Amino acid sequence: MRGEAMQYRMSVRVMPKAGISDPEGKAIHDAALQLGYHQVTSVHAGKSFEVDGEYDSEEAARQEAHSLAARLLANPVIETYEIVDVSELA
Amino acid sequence: MRGEAMQYRMSVRVMPKAGISDPEGKAIHDAALQLGYHQVTSVHAGKSFEVDGEYDSEEAARQEAHSLAARLLANPVIETYEIVDVSELA
Repeated sequence: MRGEAMQYRMSVRVMPKAGISDPEGKAIHDAALQLGYHQVTSVHAGKSFEVDGEYDSEEAARQEAHSLAARLLANPVIETYEIVDVSELA
Repeated sequence: MRGEAMQYRMSVRVMPKAGISDPEGKAIHDAALQLGYHQVTSVHAGKSFEVDGEYDSEEAARQEAHSLAARLLANPVIETYEIVDVSELA
């Protein structure tokens, strides 16, 4: 059993909930059309986080990622979050 | 051969380049420490995009995602981008 904590990187994605207004996504969609990207039908803009930390296991790191996302990274009223990846850093 | 275009969703992640100041990430790291997340060693904050569009193939959608990311979604001077996923929408 490896006693000491290991360094993990947790990738978290936060996006607006469906139906919530997304002015940044709309503005980017308009800009894409102006640049000639006529096949683009919609753009949604959100946030992406990489959180590094020291944990005893991947499971501990994943749980912390959920806790951080729910309490700090995402606004539960208008956003949803997804833990995209949790991996040990060399 | 399916002639008509299909609907694809392209997920793009844009993060600050290493070494570039990341005030939002720093502020979130400070907030995490204040909330008691003492195992967090760093936070990097970036952007996440979901771009929907109609393309003849996954490859065509992936190429458009690269073009959009390089020209519109990421600032090449201070940011890097990653095409996280390209998938056909049902």
